[in-house]
Amino acid sequence: MRKYFPFLEWSVNYRNADLKGDISAGLTVAVMLIPQGMAYALLAGLPPIIGLYASVLPLFVYALFGTSRQLAVGPVAMVSLLVASGIGNFATPGSEQFVQLAILLALMVGIIQLLMGIGRMGFLVNFLSHPVISGFTSAAALIIGFSQLKHLLGISIPRSHHIHETIWHAISQISDINPLTLSIGLVSIVLLIVLKRWRPVFPGALMVVVIGALAAWGLSLTEAGVKVVGAVPEGLPALSLPQFNTAQLTDLLPVALTIALVGFMESIAVAKNFAAKHRYAIDANQELVGLGLANIAGGFFSSYPVTGGFSRSAVNDQAGAKSGLASIISAIMVAITLLFLTPLFYYLPTASLAAIIMVAVFGLVDIQEARHLYAIKKADFYLLLLAFFATLLLGIEEGILVSVVASLILVIRRTTRPHTAILGKIPGSDIYRNLERYLEAKSPDGIAIIRIDAALYFANCAFLKTQIDALAGRENLRAIVLDASSINDIDASADAMLHSIVRDLTERGIGFYLANVKGPVRDVLRRSGLYKVLGEDHFFFSIHDAVMHINGEKSDIENEIQFIG
Amino acid sequence: MRKYFPFLEWSVNYRNADLKGDISAGLTVAVMLIPQGMAYALLAGLPPIIGLYASVLPLFVYALFGTSRQLAVGPVAMVSLLVASGIGNFATPGSEQFVQLAILLALMVGIIQLLMGIGRMGFLVNFLSHPVISGFTSAAALIIGFSQLKHLLGISIPRSHHIHETIWHAISQISDINPLTLSIGLVSIVLLIVLKRWRPVFPGALMVVVIGALAAWGLSLTEAGVKVVGAVPEGLPALSLPQFNTAQLTDLLPVALTIALVGFMESIAVAKNFAAKHRYAIDANQELVGLGLANIAGGFFSSYPVTGGFSRSAVNDQAGAKSGLASIISAIMVAITLLFLTPLFYYLPTASLAAIIMVAVFGLVDIQEARHLYAIKKADFYLLLLAFFATLLLGIEEGILVSVVASLILVIRRTTRPHTAILGKIPGSDIYRNLERYLEAKSPDGIAIIRIDAALYFANCAFLKTQIDALAGRENLRAIVLDASSINDIDASADAMLHSIVRDLTERGIGFYLANVKGPVRDVLRRSGLYKVLGEDHFFFSIHDAVMHINGEKSDIENEIQFIG
Repeated sequence: MRKYFPFLEWSVNYRNADLKGDISAGLTVAVMLIPQGMAYALLAGLPPIIGLYASVLPLFVYALFGTSRQLAVGPVAMVSLLVASGIGNFATPGSEQFVQLAILLALMVGIIQLLMGIGRMGFLVNFLSHPVISGFTSAAALIIGFSQLKHLLGISIPRSHHIHETIWHAISQISDINPLTLSIGLVSIVLLIVLKRWRPVFPGALMVVVIGALAAWGLSLTEAGVKVVGAVPEGLPALSLPQFNTAQLTDLLPVALTIALVGFMESIAVAKNFAAKHRYAIDANQELVGLGLANIAGGFFSSYPVTGGFSRSAVNDQAGAKSGLASIISAIMVAITLLFLTPLFYYLPTASLAAIIMVAVFGLVDIQEARHLYAIKKADFYLLLLAFFATLLLGIEEGILVSVVASLILVIRRTTRPHTAILGKIPGSDIYRNLERYLEAKSPDGIAIIRIDAALYFANCAFLKTQIDALAGRENLRAIVLDASSINDIDASADAMLHSIVRDLTERGIGFYLANVKGPVRDVLRRSGLYKVLGEDHFFFSIHDAVMHINGEKSDIENEIQFIG
Repeated sequence: MRKYFPFLEWSVNYRNADLKGDISAGLTVAVMLIPQGMAYALLAGLPPIIGLYASVLPLFVYALFGTSRQLAVGPVAMVSLLVASGIGNFATPGSEQFVQLAILLALMVGIIQLLMGIGRMGFLVNFLSHPVISGFTSAAALIIGFSQLKHLLGISIPRSHHIHETIWHAISQISDINPLTLSIGLVSIVLLIVLKRWRPVFPGALMVVVIGALAAWGLSLTEAGVKVVGAVPEGLPALSLPQFNTAQLTDLLPVALTIALVGFMESIAVAKNFAAKHRYAIDANQELVGLGLANIAGGFFSSYPVTGGFSRSAVNDQAGAKSGLASIISAIMVAITLLFLTPLFYYLPTASLAAIIMVAVFGLVDIQEARHLYAIKKADFYLLLLAFFATLLLGIEEGILVSVVASLILVIRRTTRPHTAILGKIPGSDIYRNLERYLEAKSPDGIAIIRIDAALYFANCAFLKTQIDALAGRENLRAIVLDASSINDIDASADAMLHSIVRDLTERGIGFYLANVKGPVRDVLRRSGLYKVLGEDHFFFSIHDAVMHINGEKSDIENEIQFIG
């Protein structure tokens, strides 16, 4: 029960001592979330109100079903950018249709994440390597940051994934720059950076927003061409079924899959971080369920896709969050804002929101990590460069694709070549160890003993064949012994490969013996008939027994370390 | 030199004794190739002549650059079907544009395969599991077979990947069936099956084609509505640069990637089979180069994509092929046919070609394999069913996608949970072995010793953390020793994980020690500062040393098995 409703865990054992931290964290995050939510919605090509809608119900739902106690769910920069570039191919940013597709996307992302969680696919999170994530994030941060230039300068730049194009457009319109807009933006950036460095707990984003709105209102800056958010509808989002046709589903599926995966990766990385710090367990599959339900709920209440983000979670933790209650309080604060405070946003300059985004994302450009990798492992450094430049030069989605494919190829390359060892006998004992590591170990005359340190299955069984073929080429070889002590499991492809190894070696007049075969493997080999093909007398409890048998000696059971099957 | 021009290998050492086999095999395959080439081109939605063009130059090129001596390259059913469904979205089958796209596709497939070969990506062949390939092939065979119903019945059925639709269309037009066409088809099928069973070396396809053409010509069957191949242009294909624009390249890229991979998979499986039988080595990367160059050459001479196929390679081997010379002889025979014999094909009924395809592909439906898997390993059986039904119900390309994703998920799942063992001391020795397997082994008081049997990298380091966290929860635990003897390599992600393990354990007051750390791993850990963080005195040459140190005893070097780093 508690496994599927994690809030039962913390709500039942809730300590009053935690309440103060949760309230303080909930309020602090809300103050950050309101301007960020609007800013990220703008980044996604949506009206700011959608960012606020995405900051209410999804937070509630995640608090009930998620396993992290510090994770702050809501609009984040990366997902917003994916929404912008993914839907940008099918609708005009800011249009009614764009908004509808974004809401449909939330529903699709939610369903995909829920299904992945139910299908226990949480382990997929392991398949993107750190260097690849780091390179991709740095490049995406640059693209996101530069995409805000138009708001900062008060000019119009066509949406582009190519930074040099964006910069070129900005330079070519240098005479059109609105100096007031630029001033608001620059002052906001400086304030944010200074506050971040000297007063990390101070709600810098809120202050920037308040100052910007006051200035625009008091000095009538809109008349001087400073763009502001404008009318924001009042009230909570209403329940509405996303409208769609099957063509739209097909169009959005690749984007939905990408956001479901990337959003989950970002979220789980943050959640794991805080779970380790506070010593509790995160369940990756339940995290998928929690995020999935949050997005599904959002899809029915005019929200766009959300996930757990780094910066607000850090603030949540720092301000003392001890449970999901903190997120629920944040959500209530945003709801109150939606009910009563939206008229105050009218004069909020978009340049202030752009400044918030730029400061947030440029902090994600991680040069430190690149330097670190260069120092300790060159191969990882080059991977980082690959992901970085692929994203920067080809675009966000192509960058993800290249990064995922590069990571997958690495996984496959590793997995197809498991560790193997050629064993020899330690003199004066009946122990067989790796010849490369125990110099005094000796290979028995005419017998090669090989151990493979992995479950045998379709991806690595060809490698075993290659290794055994190489051994079989040795002069005067009479027998090969496979030490199966590390083979915990075997699949049908590997079983077929063993049959073909037996056939080959038999044709060459070389005996094939197995030692230390474990129970589950034994069952498969028995059913597949390998015991019949080889004969029961080719299977031994230990390498020593096998070697004694091959040499025609009797096994000296007394000396032997008893093997337990 | 010989590595990149494998024909130097066999041409230099050519024995006259092999010539007879090569000539006989070359002629036999040509007799099979000519009707099959035309039939498969028809299946691909192309005029039969394109299948003959694809049976000349690509065979020459593969013979020079491929490493297999029995592989018969040319048009095959699976690739033909992929061409039909892949280009079908962009052009009408049989149209001039369709032909041009198919030729462009050959060029693209060739370039992709060549690049993969140069990039040494041959290992990718290991990532599709046998059950998945078997299930996919069986379903694809059914789809291909039923797609020929229209030729067999002499009716017109819209192209569909859904067998039930195809069958439904056939039934609804039952009154339109041309009885003469159906008779030719059925007689051909019966002849082919009977000959295959009773006279396997007899050129059944040729006989069916000859009988069909004679009947159509002699009995004037075209006047009774029997469809025939019609005029086939005479002469060899001319050199022509494929025409294309960038939109077409983008459209065809997914199809080209699919064909490049699937074609390679089919080809390498066949090539490996015969290489094992005749005891020579296949180089997967050079195979990619050979197939790639064959397709590129084909692209410049009006050919559609080719690969090494199962049935003709089997006949090639059976008829005595000993080297690429056999394929060169086949190609010359097809060239002679193109120069002088094409008028003879005018009266060839398409029903005869359909019969050849149907008999060929229904033989690929492998119920035996499904039964075998059910008996020896249920999980593999369910995988086969998944691939089979995904292909049958969703279509060929979707089936490949589902199969690839299922295989990849399996690889990742395996690779993220490598084998680990908790070790204990064998009494009266300084040897530490797996506690689960050596009942008399004892865990030292307050010390847990863990060994992980894999290189540590991003995909499996989270698993190590989980295992160590579980150990750290034990009561009265003072220290954890990681036996690194099986860790051949480590990447930056795993190094970061070790740092985080050290941090966590230190906070809990548990010591962390490493034993048997290998050279390359040592280098990374030194550069990343783990030696400094932990202290040099936390690294030991053996588990025994580490345990002695933790217990405050002096190491008894004399008794120790010397470790070589």
